[in-house]
Amino acid sequence: MERTLISELGQKVGEVALIKGWVSVRRDQGKMVFFDFRDRSSSVQGVVLPNSAAIEIAKEIRQEYVVSVEGKVNQRPEKNRNDKVQNGDIELEVLQITVLAKAEPLPFDMSLEGYNLELTAELDHRALTLRHPRLQAIFKIQATIIDSFREYMKSQDFFEFQAPSIVPAVAEGGAEVFQVDYFDKKAYLSQSPQLYKQIVMTAFERVFSVNKIFRAEPSATTRHLTEVVSLDAEMGFIDSWHDVRDMSEATVRHILNELGKKCAKELELMGATLPQMIENTPTLSLTEAFAKLQIPADKDLNPEQERKLCEVIKEETGSDFVYIYGYPTRQKPFYVYPNPEEPEFNEGMDLLCRGVEWLSGGRRINDYAQLMEHVQKWEMDPQKIEMFLEAFRYGAPPEGGFAFGSERMTMQILGLKNIREATMFPRDMNRIDGLLSQDTDE
Amino acid sequence: MERTLISELGQKVGEVALIKGWVSVRRDQGKMVFFDFRDRSSSVQGVVLPNSAAIEIAKEIRQEYVVSVEGKVNQRPEKNRNDKVQNGDIELEVLQITVLAKAEPLPFDMSLEGYNLELTAELDHRALTLRHPRLQAIFKIQATIIDSFREYMKSQDFFEFQAPSIVPAVAEGGAEVFQVDYFDKKAYLSQSPQLYKQIVMTAFERVFSVNKIFRAEPSATTRHLTEVVSLDAEMGFIDSWHDVRDMSEATVRHILNELGKKCAKELELMGATLPQMIENTPTLSLTEAFAKLQIPADKDLNPEQERKLCEVIKEETGSDFVYIYGYPTRQKPFYVYPNPEEPEFNEGMDLLCRGVEWLSGGRRINDYAQLMEHVQKWEMDPQKIEMFLEAFRYGAPPEGGFAFGSERMTMQILGLKNIREATMFPRDMNRIDGLLSQDTDE
Repeated sequence: MERTLISELGQKVGEVALIKGWVSVRRDQGKMVFFDFRDRSSSVQGVVLPNSAAIEIAKEIRQEYVVSVEGKVNQRPEKNRNDKVQNGDIELEVLQITVLAKAEPLPFDMSLEGYNLELTAELDHRALTLRHPRLQAIFKIQATIIDSFREYMKSQDFFEFQAPSIVPAVAEGGAEVFQVDYFDKKAYLSQSPQLYKQIVMTAFERVFSVNKIFRAEPSATTRHLTEVVSLDAEMGFIDSWHDVRDMSEATVRHILNELGKKCAKELELMGATLPQMIENTPTLSLTEAFAKLQIPADKDLNPEQERKLCEVIKEETGSDFVYIYGYPTRQKPFYVYPNPEEPEFNEGMDLLCRGVEWLSGGRRINDYAQLMEHVQKWEMDPQKIEMFLEAFRYGAPPEGGFAFGSERMTMQILGLKNIREATMFPRDMNRIDGLLSQDTDE
Repeated sequence: MERTLISELGQKVGEVALIKGWVSVRRDQGKMVFFDFRDRSSSVQGVVLPNSAAIEIAKEIRQEYVVSVEGKVNQRPEKNRNDKVQNGDIELEVLQITVLAKAEPLPFDMSLEGYNLELTAELDHRALTLRHPRLQAIFKIQATIIDSFREYMKSQDFFEFQAPSIVPAVAEGGAEVFQVDYFDKKAYLSQSPQLYKQIVMTAFERVFSVNKIFRAEPSATTRHLTEVVSLDAEMGFIDSWHDVRDMSEATVRHILNELGKKCAKELELMGATLPQMIENTPTLSLTEAFAKLQIPADKDLNPEQERKLCEVIKEETGSDFVYIYGYPTRQKPFYVYPNPEEPEFNEGMDLLCRGVEWLSGGRRINDYAQLMEHVQKWEMDPQKIEMFLEAFRYGAPPEGGFAFGSERMTMQILGLKNIREATMFPRDMNRIDGLLSQDTDE
């Protein structure tokens, strides 16, 4: 008999079907045994009646056993229906069970309600905890964010490229970069695909990439990881930075719409509501932002000010989002485009949501002479960015782009307290899979 | 006036349109100036007539200048049509040109016919050579391979996860692994997401990832890179390794079909024909393969034998592909499933195409006791793979998977001589963007 996915059992009421999956729950009621079976598609209750051929083996089966089950799909009587769970209106009357793999007794409660691990323990047992509905929901939401980003980029004619992870030298700063033993030389892990995406833009006009970036920040806060997935876009032939703003806004809007459509169940399980993006996201210069907060202007908003500003904007407009643009030129990287009317401020921008920065971007310098001027002013070594400079030496259109982290967005949408919860295999200064202190004697 | 993409000019014959793009070619014929303009969508010939307001500026413009051009779209007279180029039936009569960015004189011929760089020079000037139609074709084909892989996986209910790049310790072997200075400890760059995809499979049943893998092979051959993009899949609840074979075959078939549909122009430009995949790809055990070659059986086919076998199969069946399965168990990693009837051979498999291995995979051990037996026999440290072992300790279904490299497949389909041609930013022991020897004094 061919396997039926559990999500399709509802279409086979009255028939015998074969399912394969894991045992989430087993309730032995003496004469009868009840199970919750789950596969990748859904879950369903099974009942083994006292006279079933499967009653003996049902007594042996434990949580997380992998089984193949033949059973009759029955409609549940009205009084036993449970609208709150998947397949709450049907039940599988088990005729036969085959054990495909056994499981050792679980080290902690994995039930939906009973699961209550500290984050450290959750990460120590990542291989097992990934099976919990909460974690499944988190990573389904994250996969949907990443996929909808790509989907929207492709619909807007952006070309996908693979940004490199190993880089030759550190163009900007460099304190927080990982060093790699590269044969008898030194190489580094990429902190950002920024210069690469600008290069590829000069050849393909509109480009995007989904890529790893690495930061060697010796910090164990709830918001820092050493390896994250960055979603990057860059577009040529813009008329102004507003085109970049608009493209980033449309991208975020598409992602939120897709989450609403594809992850409604997961958002509900997590008790999360999607942030509200109104038709025109409020957009303030940094100077205007400080004026709105009625405090003196400074180089940047601090986290407390970001929170406050988002509250004010939410109250005034209903928007959970606000764009800030026009940062002090010298505070930002050399490639950010200075406002021609007011060159001490640039055309970089950030998108804040519910008090936290989600996305950064803006217009970049495309004129080679202006770029070289900045390279000098920023005291950079042109040799180290020669490939980047070559791209602009031979004709680059007015351009800009944006980037955001998939983990940060997942964390913010779900209101998670720690970014490690939004990462399947989080790496930080103390942990790579297991805690690193356990390995010091290696 | 709003920008028109060059690919859409054909719909505006008789109208005035605004295009933006690069100058690929400029032919100054004294009284008139001819241009080839290109944007991300296509290219078109422009002509500046002697009485045009743009004739002065047209004289100043050089190759790769970035321009905004207003012109009238004219049908070309029959005798001037060129069916071999895009938009060969129309011409843009230039009314106005604005220079958006200048370009320095090109260091070499970038025309379709005249381009003739050695690979080393091509890589030294990657930022510029990426604009050449040949390179654009290569990377469009590669992007299509990667995207069609994801597309097919999603259609088959596979869940996308992000495999980590930084790993704690080297489970198998370890000679060819890059070491990272990880704060005051050591970490490594992932050589394969193998164990991670098996872990995630135990939670999501069917999983895939597009991820970087790293190999520190001190080898400068035409087939080795230190950083490549691996396309990985893993599926639970298989009945036998044939299910993995079938899924991998369907995946490759989908990719080839999509390439045929979406990249016909690029394949033609490259003079490439897609390999022939017949309805049932021939599938031989390693023993049968040696028998067919009429040579004594050995541990594996060498490259010459792989080529020969593919020739024989092609002649016999018309298929460019052949699966080989059943390798000596002890020659392969600990997780590969031994054939229960003949345990000295395993259920690992390779897919060869036109003489070269494209894809590897097979069934894995899912039974925890059997896995632990192999861990011992292979003399592995269970501590180093504790997270992996945990996944299988708590119930894992019969399973298998496969993997292939996007660069290798691009190279083989296009008949490229060097894998560096199939990588936008190739890294090897001598090069990361620029040649590393230039940096030895840093």
